Amino acid sequence: MPSLHQFDWAVRDIEFLLWEQFQIDSRLLQHDALESAGINRELLNTLLQQARQFATRELDSINLEADLQGCRLDQQGKVHIPDAYFPAWEKYKQAGWNELAKPVHEDISLPQVACQAYLELFFGACPSFMLYGGFGASIAQLIKRYGSEAQQHDYIDKLLSLQWSSCFCMTEPQAGSDVGSIRTRATRQEDGSYLLEGEKIFITAGMHELTENLLYLVVARCTDAPQGTFGLSCFLVSRFELENGELTTRPNGVRATRVEKKMGLSGCATTSLSFGLDGPCRAYLLGQQENQGLQQLSSLMALARLSTGLFSLGIASKAYQNAAAYAQQRFQGANIRQAFNPMASKVAIVEHADVKRMLLEMKSKVEGCRALLTKLSLHYSQVQFAQQGVNTLNEDEVNRHERWIGLLTPLVKAHISNQAWRVSELAIQVYGGHGYIRDNPVEQAARDCKILSIWEGTNFLQSAELIREKCAMGRPSPSLDLALHSMIDFLETSAARSEFPQASAQLEAAINALQSAHHAIGGFTRTREIEHIFFNSTRFLGLLADTLITWLLLEAALIAQQELIQFNQDDPAIDTQEQHFLQGKIDSLHYFANYELPLSLAQAEIITKAPPLVADVDSAIFQ
Amino acid sequence: MPSLHQFDWAVRDIEFLLWEQFQIDSRLLQHDALESAGINRELLNTLLQQARQFATRELDSINLEADLQGCRLDQQGKVHIPDAYFPAWEKYKQAGWNELAKPVHEDISLPQVACQAYLELFFGACPSFMLYGGFGASIAQLIKRYGSEAQQHDYIDKLLSLQWSSCFCMTEPQAGSDVGSIRTRATRQEDGSYLLEGEKIFITAGMHELTENLLYLVVARCTDAPQGTFGLSCFLVSRFELENGELTTRPNGVRATRVEKKMGLSGCATTSLSFGLDGPCRAYLLGQQENQGLQQLSSLMALARLSTGLFSLGIASKAYQNAAAYAQQRFQGANIRQAFNPMASKVAIVEHADVKRMLLEMKSKVEGCRALLTKLSLHYSQVQFAQQGVNTLNEDEVNRHERWIGLLTPLVKAHISNQAWRVSELAIQVYGGHGYIRDNPVEQAARDCKILSIWEGTNFLQSAELIREKCAMGRPSPSLDLALHSMIDFLETSAARSEFPQASAQLEAAINALQSAHHAIGGFTRTREIEHIFFNSTRFLGLLADTLITWLLLEAALIAQQELIQFNQDDPAIDTQEQHFLQGKIDSLHYFANYELPLSLAQAEIITKAPPLVADVDSAIFQ
Repeated sequence: MPSLHQFDWAVRDIEFLLWEQFQIDSRLLQHDALESAGINRELLNTLLQQARQFATRELDSINLEADLQGCRLDQQGKVHIPDAYFPAWEKYKQAGWNELAKPVHEDISLPQVACQAYLELFFGACPSFMLYGGFGASIAQLIKRYGSEAQQHDYIDKLLSLQWSSCFCMTEPQAGSDVGSIRTRATRQEDGSYLLEGEKIFITAGMHELTENLLYLVVARCTDAPQGTFGLSCFLVSRFELENGELTTRPNGVRATRVEKKMGLSGCATTSLSFGLDGPCRAYLLGQQENQGLQQLSSLMALARLSTGLFSLGIASKAYQNAAAYAQQRFQGANIRQAFNPMASKVAIVEHADVKRMLLEMKSKVEGCRALLTKLSLHYSQVQFAQQGVNTLNEDEVNRHERWIGLLTPLVKAHISNQAWRVSELAIQVYGGHGYIRDNPVEQAARDCKILSIWEGTNFLQSAELIREKCAMGRPSPSLDLALHSMIDFLETSAARSEFPQASAQLEAAINALQSAHHAIGGFTRTREIEHIFFNSTRFLGLLADTLITWLLLEAALIAQQELIQFNQDDPAIDTQEQHFLQGKIDSLHYFANYELPLSLAQAEIITKAPPLVADVDSAIFQ
Repeated sequence: MPSLHQFDWAVRDIEFLLWEQFQIDSRLLQHDALESAGINRELLNTLLQQARQFATRELDSINLEADLQGCRLDQQGKVHIPDAYFPAWEKYKQAGWNELAKPVHEDISLPQVACQAYLELFFGACPSFMLYGGFGASIAQLIKRYGSEAQQHDYIDKLLSLQWSSCFCMTEPQAGSDVGSIRTRATRQEDGSYLLEGEKIFITAGMHELTENLLYLVVARCTDAPQGTFGLSCFLVSRFELENGELTTRPNGVRATRVEKKMGLSGCATTSLSFGLDGPCRAYLLGQQENQGLQQLSSLMALARLSTGLFSLGIASKAYQNAAAYAQQRFQGANIRQAFNPMASKVAIVEHADVKRMLLEMKSKVEGCRALLTKLSLHYSQVQFAQQGVNTLNEDEVNRHERWIGLLTPLVKAHISNQAWRVSELAIQVYGGHGYIRDNPVEQAARDCKILSIWEGTNFLQSAELIREKCAMGRPSPSLDLALHSMIDFLETSAARSEFPQASAQLEAAINALQSAHHAIGGFTRTREIEHIFFNSTRFLGLLADTLITWLLLEAALIAQQELIQFNQDDPAIDTQEQHFLQGKIDSLHYFANYELPLSLAQAEIITKAPPLVADVDSAIFQ
């Protein structure tokens, strides 16, 4: 069964973020160059409506069927993916969604913050399908930055238009989080190319026939490279051989050796690939020098993390909307005040206090995560437009955006994927026993999203990077200060304290708790209690994310309240869906600030006060 | 792949609870009657070892294969279940596990607290398989209490020995949590029997060929019965007709109309059944009077809730042990202090601070849940032995045990099922990407356990019952007082405060928080803010469960510490697995009291301080 909704709420919330809360009209799109490129509010809104339709009609409608069919490797080594993906892929291209990342006018492309909105709907509607186009734009960006002219010429257009698809090949059996252990070997040939030999596992959409060719970005080690992460290089590997830039039908030594049976994302072929074990596999170094791989990958990894947050958001948002729609239409039980009256009329379960609790938790989390992710994309969009010559940011301004990007990226990856799991759990609970069966879409949400806390750097690794690189191990941190001052400024200059005193007090408490927790971490750094810091780093990440989310929800509630006042002035008798939407923003704030944030404050207290333990825990107790 | 362990840790922890912490030797088994029945420490321990072997060799080994095969209904209406279950069922009976609930000597049977220990291992090893024997003992108990002599004679032995299996048929499409909406109709015949007509859904193990017959306990409504829950009656329905108490091969109008595809428990046939729609279905009223159904079912439901806790515990415990074993054998990354040294030697991931955090959370939760469940079963065992004439409890003592049973049952059902989901999530995270694939046993744990928060009364309904019936809506509550005084007495009379001052202070804070929360609920009752109470009732349930768990972990740590001192006196140089086990009990306490309990204290603060919200939330905001 497809979803019970058509993404209406998500679309309205996206519009709210773009135009009302982040006001991209005046803060991002006000430049003349965009006018000539035709990039304006009307275009972005039109595309959003088209995306909603496409998500509903073409993607959500095939999601269950593809999950049930799954993927498999046949005895001839061919990978079979869900049948429904072939027509969907054609429609995706016909509708032009494959070209979202391409320039629309000269060098100017659609702002990332808008593309993200469309992709959120697609990712939610059919996440497995969307993984087949996954890395195209970001690998194209990498080639643009590091590739030779010939590579740029041969590959970028094909990747940006999804004529070819592309995969990122990093993991090996012995090298998961520990990428320094990668063994795939690259041997330099006289013509400057390399021969690859090795095996990669868990390659997302690693082999399929949706596109005429696949371009693999393979992380490998040159023959005489140093050990560890500093000896890694990136290579471009075409599935089929190229001759003078033209595609042939001759295989290039890449073979699918296994397709995983997984908890979820069953429609996505998670593939083991062998390179150069059944015939030579020719590869081309990315860039001029060997051993630059990890450094080259940093921008790719940052985008992959944003994407992971976006998958998480799309899945969580759809799970919430399904649960809300189900709760509106499922009649079960009477009003609590008539619980023991057998004659009492039945009510929709959305009227029950505990169902409201679950829906408020889901809704406020999804809105908060969407605001966090949109903020990150907005900073990206500013940098993007600076690079495309649309705006004229000075160095300080660019640095400020980059700082936000650095701080928000691990939060978006780790926090949103954690919340997606929780939101899916609640969606199942709202459906009751009906949520446990595969006919209904919510159990799939939980199964699909579980990998998101693991891939592209586990959620712990995100928290470790946050503490180490963005928060200076608890020492003075410009990135954290930027966030703290932005929130303090907001409380001091907005109407938050007078309009929403309780929520503002909670936010203030969270800001203080964040500072205390950061300070405590600095203390542990000085006393060299490093294990204790990383025993608590995921808590710190959650605390920072929840504090920022409270801020963004508070900002949204202030705006919604103003709009509601306007509504009531216009005609106090009207009671529309739009008013419920706006009231819902205010309710989300109240719920999140008063019923969720206190749990993060408790995490802060654990960071600052719990007696250190981990360094004394002997691993032998885990039997 | 079967599990990476053989339940050794679970068995040791069970022994610890039985003999060291709850001291059932002197508190339960000290009666002469048990000596003649041969029920003693040696027997129970021998059975525990045999259960461990059986769980490992016969059940855990088929768990994955059965999950992949699943169940289906063929076009002739026959239900197919996993092939592996047929030999396993025979072995289960050969080994005598089918007779756990039967009297071993006169009326005396094994104490429930021991049977539960064996079942925990089986439930963890292959939960879907175990569901086929699911309701046998508790339906037999019901027939013993309410059934006619002929029914007792014809059915009880067959159910207790699993010669027949039995199912509980309650849910209908329009009647899930709202059992008062049940429509299945029973029409009284002249001979005193009834004809049933109706459809039931989500019937666990509703149809299969493992046993020669199935006995259905069907909740239905007599022709002229009142509406709502007070018009329900229980009926016994045999799959095949009986003639003078003998089984025939003539079907009795029960047909499987659908087998669900589910998120998990794929090996269990969750069946839709029609009664009397393809031919007459003869049913026999349980008891003398109509409309007594719901009252009759209360003891069955209580046991079903304990069982749900036991399934949750078994699944969580296995998931933890697999994660612990995997973390010991998976080498990835170096010691954090050498994180950037490419030459540093790799360590097992169990050495990483964040993996220790996850394992400590899992371990302390599993131990805490097992202690809670064992305490509940111990109270049941005392009542059981009183009924079987083994002990001579006075009325006050029986009441005290019943009071604990009433208070602990909703906690065991709801809290342990919630924790199982969380523990499974962490187990997947410890495995990393390998946890997401179906070869490894942890993703199945998450899928299998998710229904447990829903069936046998959703976890919200447990919390509502707890607040309403056990905690008197916040007014003075003998049940809650019993729990509070037990914990306060413990703190005052044990060595807890001197030996574990931090954990004791946390427990004291939790006891106070619990009293404040209960008091606050009483206030809301007085001001008639009923919706607000049930908006917070799941929080209250979690708070009470975590407080009790801290108490039980603290008691365990005191015992473990004494045993460790003895070890060190005997030979300080020895470093054995047993010492690690005991040290692990102490570490669990430290972790739980200092890193988990504070989150429940925050829930208490939400209950007492968060501004009421739900009554003002218009359900129309959920779009």
